[in-house]
Amino acid sequence: MKSFAAVATLLAEQEIELPSWAFGNSGTRFKVFTTPGTPRTPQEKIADAAQVHKYTALSPSVALHIPWDKVDDYAALSAFAQEHGVALGTINSNTFQDDAYKFGSLTHTDAAVRQKAIDHHFECIDIMDATGSRDLKIWLADGTNYPGQGDIRGRQDRLQESLQKIYDRIGENQRLVLEYKFFEPAFYHTDVPDWGTSYAQVAALGDRALVCLDTGHHAPGTNIEFIVMQLLRLGKLGSFDFNSRFYADDDLIVGAADPFQLFRILFEVVRGGGYGADSGVAFMLDQCHNVEDKIAGQIRSVLNVQEMTARALLVDTDTLKAAQDAGDVLGANGILMDAFYTDVRPDLAAWRESRGLAGDPTAAYAASGYQAKIAADRVGGQQASWGA
Amino acid sequence: MKSFAAVATLLAEQEIELPSWAFGNSGTRFKVFTTPGTPRTPQEKIADAAQVHKYTALSPSVALHIPWDKVDDYAALSAFAQEHGVALGTINSNTFQDDAYKFGSLTHTDAAVRQKAIDHHFECIDIMDATGSRDLKIWLADGTNYPGQGDIRGRQDRLQESLQKIYDRIGENQRLVLEYKFFEPAFYHTDVPDWGTSYAQVAALGDRALVCLDTGHHAPGTNIEFIVMQLLRLGKLGSFDFNSRFYADDDLIVGAADPFQLFRILFEVVRGGGYGADSGVAFMLDQCHNVEDKIAGQIRSVLNVQEMTARALLVDTDTLKAAQDAGDVLGANGILMDAFYTDVRPDLAAWRESRGLAGDPTAAYAASGYQAKIAADRVGGQQASWGA
Amino acid sequence: MKSFAAVATLLAEQEIELPSWAFGNSGTRFKVFTTPGTPRTPQEKIADAAQVHKYTALSPSVALHIPWDKVDDYAALSAFAQEHGVALGTINSNTFQDDAYKFGSLTHTDAAVRQKAIDHHFECIDIMDATGSRDLKIWLADGTNYPGQGDIRGRQDRLQESLQKIYDRIGENQRLVLEYKFFEPAFYHTDVPDWGTSYAQVAALGDRALVCLDTGHHAPGTNIEFIVMQLLRLGKLGSFDFNSRFYADDDLIVGAADPFQLFRILFEVVRGGGYGADSGVAFMLDQCHNVEDKIAGQIRSVLNVQEMTARALLVDTDTLKAAQDAGDVLGANGILMDAFYTDVRPDLAAWRESRGLAGDPTAAYAASGYQAKIAADRVGGQQASWGA
Amino acid sequence: MKSFAAVATLLAEQEIELPSWAFGNSGTRFKVFTTPGTPRTPQEKIADAAQVHKYTALSPSVALHIPWDKVDDYAALSAFAQEHGVALGTINSNTFQDDAYKFGSLTHTDAAVRQKAIDHHFECIDIMDATGSRDLKIWLADGTNYPGQGDIRGRQDRLQESLQKIYDRIGENQRLVLEYKFFEPAFYHTDVPDWGTSYAQVAALGDRALVCLDTGHHAPGTNIEFIVMQLLRLGKLGSFDFNSRFYADDDLIVGAADPFQLFRILFEVVRGGGYGADSGVAFMLDQCHNVEDKIAGQIRSVLNVQEMTARALLVDTDTLKAAQDAGDVLGANGILMDAFYTDVRPDLAAWRESRGLAGDPTAAYAASGYQAKIAADRVGGQQASWGA
Repeated sequence: MKSFAAVATLLAEQEIELPSWAFGNSGTRFKVFTTPGTPRTPQEKIADAAQVHKYTALSPSVALHIPWDKVDDYAALSAFAQEHGVALGTINSNTFQDDAYKFGSLTHTDAAVRQKAIDHHFECIDIMDATGSRDLKIWLADGTNYPGQGDIRGRQDRLQESLQKIYDRIGENQRLVLEYKFFEPAFYHTDVPDWGTSYAQVAALGDRALVCLDTGHHAPGTNIEFIVMQLLRLGKLGSFDFNSRFYADDDLIVGAADPFQLFRILFEVVRGGGYGADSGVAFMLDQCHNVEDKIAGQIRSVLNVQEMTARALLVDTDTLKAAQDAGDVLGANGILMDAFYTDVRPDLAAWRESRGLAGDPTAAYAASGYQAKIAADRVGGQQASWGA
Repeated sequence: MKSFAAVATLLAEQEIELPSWAFGNSGTRFKVFTTPGTPRTPQEKIADAAQVHKYTALSPSVALHIPWDKVDDYAALSAFAQEHGVALGTINSNTFQDDAYKFGSLTHTDAAVRQKAIDHHFECIDIMDATGSRDLKIWLADGTNYPGQGDIRGRQDRLQESLQKIYDRIGENQRLVLEYKFFEPAFYHTDVPDWGTSYAQVAALGDRALVCLDTGHHAPGTNIEFIVMQLLRLGKLGSFDFNSRFYADDDLIVGAADPFQLFRILFEVVRGGGYGADSGVAFMLDQCHNVEDKIAGQIRSVLNVQEMTARALLVDTDTLKAAQDAGDVLGANGILMDAFYTDVRPDLAAWRESRGLAGDPTAAYAASGYQAKIAADRVGGQQASWGA
Repeated sequence: MKSFAAVATLLAEQEIELPSWAFGNSGTRFKVFTTPGTPRTPQEKIADAAQVHKYTALSPSVALHIPWDKVDDYAALSAFAQEHGVALGTINSNTFQDDAYKFGSLTHTDAAVRQKAIDHHFECIDIMDATGSRDLKIWLADGTNYPGQGDIRGRQDRLQESLQKIYDRIGENQRLVLEYKFFEPAFYHTDVPDWGTSYAQVAALGDRALVCLDTGHHAPGTNIEFIVMQLLRLGKLGSFDFNSRFYADDDLIVGAADPFQLFRILFEVVRGGGYGADSGVAFMLDQCHNVEDKIAGQIRSVLNVQEMTARALLVDTDTLKAAQDAGDVLGANGILMDAFYTDVRPDLAAWRESRGLAGDPTAAYAASGYQAKIAADRVGGQQASWGA
Repeated sequence: MKSFAAVATLLAEQEIELPSWAFGNSGTRFKVFTTPGTPRTPQEKIADAAQVHKYTALSPSVALHIPWDKVDDYAALSAFAQEHGVALGTINSNTFQDDAYKFGSLTHTDAAVRQKAIDHHFECIDIMDATGSRDLKIWLADGTNYPGQGDIRGRQDRLQESLQKIYDRIGENQRLVLEYKFFEPAFYHTDVPDWGTSYAQVAALGDRALVCLDTGHHAPGTNIEFIVMQLLRLGKLGSFDFNSRFYADDDLIVGAADPFQLFRILFEVVRGGGYGADSGVAFMLDQCHNVEDKIAGQIRSVLNVQEMTARALLVDTDTLKAAQDAGDVLGANGILMDAFYTDVRPDLAAWRESRGLAGDPTAAYAASGYQAKIAADRVGGQQASWGA
């Protein structure tokens, strides 16, 4: 196993983008519980996100969701973020909450509805130009609930046409990342259900179109690290939406449900050249904190990713390869497990302190009194949520 | 195979209770789409439910959900229902939408919260007394999202205590039915996740406590008809919540996702003595019509149940037993499939006409103009929904 | 809905290849039960397969598995088949039963093992040349049981190299079809687990490399007809391995577990141009008859495919499209269900009789006494099986 | 978090029974790979099992499987085991490999077949009397592959009758433990598919009938620790069959697929009073080492259970309860994760050395040369396997 010192430099390269919506309220179709201090504006969400970065130095940017984070002046919002120590990141489009999209958006049979959805993406690209964002992320909620409800082939063809129009509009330094999702909100079929569909769609668009892998969007039992490997091999892994799940798209804290799976995913990221500033693979969170504190939840999340990244980096791949080539099943597996079982938390705390941070970000944040302050300050107004 | 004539009498005994909430808006955490004509009051829901019964003669009662269907005068509501040709049925409690229940209701660590939830059920029993309802149905949304969040053993013990207090309050002719659910809205554990837990809980209460089986509340691959068989064998199958699913608790139209599964379930109902007026097994729907018409969707649903019941009744169980005993795998399976593949719709249409109904209830309802009328009449007000 | 007469011509084009191994014994890791009359030679398997075609006119060819069906003289075997009224079809390779392949075959780290596996495929191609077979089907059992056991990225790269060598050897009129499988016999990862991987691999090879979709090889809840649609759209659907499943790769009779799913799959086949003599999509069975009669089981299977094909062809796609475009969810779904619920068996029986066949192939075969004859004749020798 | 010292005494109580069949060959329906040195007799299996105990002091007993481990003189076998430092443990019956059981054993429609299966269990009880074994474990492979093949209700009733006869025969100090399994080798239904069924069956028998929980026998997504909690609460958890899985009943090394799940299971064991010499809950392994070394694989397995037990014992339940009662979701979860992430391996190595064992059992066993010795010695004869 490598020493922590040997991997510390690589850890310094890690950046995990936060989703603005994680700081607003979220829930299930049964109930959205509210909490004191929840942001009411994009600015307040950004201010909260900046707290996560302040204590972890892991999350220098914040993703926006349009229209949830619409403002009049994006340059001003960008400046606001910078003042708080973070940048604006990926722009996420939304084609699932307008009544017009009941039966589809980019895939709709009605050309006018498709154009409306395409125009929405054009607006997002305009915002990207104003914020300096690189990535336009499309999670498409389109799908059907009943067999026969839609022509799934025609929808796929229309999706390709619509995406092409959007892709043609993005700039030279911008990228389109297409997320796939197994099910929900549609229950019979979704138009981009799996990595293969997303891959086939973006491959047809061009080099700056890539796949977004959300760790919660797969069928039960899916080997996610295999998909990571394959997309890296094909040069098409654009970004991660990290979270965790026991059943469906639970959107729990990343690493909470199966930390070993997170370790294996990050091991394949490193193995396949997806780690580091130059890799082109963006790390993002996409989570809901339905019952737990949101800022503290995001801190826990980025630390989970960091801790598993450290473990993954510790694997001595030369020794591992020797065991693999020798057919030493237990030996090879043991090398991986040895890294996974290593408790990197003390080393990470020391390393953090060496960089001027608190060793325990969670405790430091708790001690700061920020949560009590926002609970007291943010009275009145409409707490941010998904607005479902 | 038996003849349709031989089973027609049994079909006349079929009653399928409708859920009032199926006529209100529903959706996902991402969006609730609205439709013109959606009811704004319990009365309007009942009026809509009565339409389903009018055209099918299959749904003589309507289940209420408290507090969604709270009114000042339940006797008046009951009379209103009767005027429309239906009765009030099962009372469904709700302990998942009050802020107090964020971390549990009947299982909460705080005795005051548990008492609040118990009191809510006492209120439901009072309503049952006023409406003449037999069944109090408890679907418990309690659970946790993260390992360690709660003491799952302590919660189970508290659940038993709370249920005992509720059970002790129901009348001699009333029943408590406890529904189980694999996951959602809680994502790590639910306090009543499977039939075994519901069975163990109600067995500890007494004879008038039974299990409610919702066909959408199981792990992938679960053999639901086996559970039906087992609960009937143990004398503890109280009621069904019918719906269908491809992935999770999709709440689609019953029979829409896997009609053969519905057939197998109904075959075991009949086999185990769960069919007919005296069986004590209540048939109910519990569905969401997120994108399709609600009244027409409920009509489709009760017809699906009726059609699969007819097929299940057609099976000649003597011939089947002979093939089973002979180890004739293909023969025995073929006898079942023969009934499933039989198109009973023409016979059912004729039978319906012989009873003074339209042969095609869907067409008759569509021709009635009711949908257009309510769309025109129900302007203003707040459309009913789950209020999540 | 279309009339049966309108689709009868299309039904005459249907050909479903039978697997020779379905006539041998099969089972689970726990037990392989034997049955009297089970073939002991490739010739006896072909003779049994010919019985299926004799009574159904649906299965004019038989797939071979090498080495299970190795003979000295393939021209003679081909002549034998022709005398029995069938042809030899797809050649299936086997790289999972030689001790050398314990840790992989086409993906092995040892070049010598890889070459051995490639050579086996060269031998299969030689057999294809002798039998006149068009398709070389590769189901790759390669994979690992433990994380870290193998370098899943390196294995994928080696797979590509190995496949390229095999592809370069097939003739102008031959095709390579690559099957994917979710899991089993490997339990941590398989090297071709999903359609996306198979697609990416064959797309890199060339036009005559295609995907084989086995209906039992997916994660729980997977929408298989969506994959059918997508592969047809991408021009890469080479063949089907039909069977059915409740849990894993159960290899039950096609249509036995979820007939509605089979109907939906066939509907998308027709919709996407995958049906008919010129489509290039091969229909095959790949099943195990562990507890039921094998020949009768294969007859049931091809009839199931035929019956669901007939139902799928009955759908009036113009009417369906109109309902879809109008957003009429229940209407569109109803059009599909109407075809599914139509009992086509009487029409098919009459059509069969009009072509000189018995109306009821199952009864005709049973009456023929063939089963009793082989049970009496085939005494001694070694019954064919997978030889696991 | 508690200190390691505080839990060391409890660790000394741990006993994990080994299955004799783990030392023989195993595989899938596709292939059983052999390895040099594999035992050919029950004695050789016991000798190998004794090696695991020699280096870990964790596995003082070996479970037998009848008829795989049948011998003429069980007293002699017991003495042989004792000479090697281990005892004979649970007796496992087998009613799935005799041709008579093709359509069931304890559930068969033919009373003669049922009696044959009952008699087999009587024979097992006789062996228990000879070996001094406490537990008779019944894993029932009975089930069907096709809907309609069997009368699942009648089978359940016959199962009860058969079990009653077996239960009536066991001695005062003996127990019957009934294992459940979701699927395989039957693919449509199994007669004891879930904990609820096993619980209902053993509850009807009496106090000395208990449930065996095999960690690989559940539907995808099942919360196994919940079942552990429930069975302990109901007083019916008799034993564990430990192993791990990614997909189906993979029978991989316990803890290999999801170590966090193993931790959670063991935490609930401790929480519910299922840990320790007096608990009455037996820990056993039930695994297959298809591709890895068998003795080393068993050593890894018992160490995995020990390491996760240590972590589970470290949880400070008072602190945890306080966080739970306060609704501190992240805090409570953090307390659990803190114990899970703690690397107990150095402490366990030191503790082992303090008890006269090698700190690293895996290295010590490897250095012993035992594997080379048995590979050289055990030439000729028939290697033990399941004999499928």
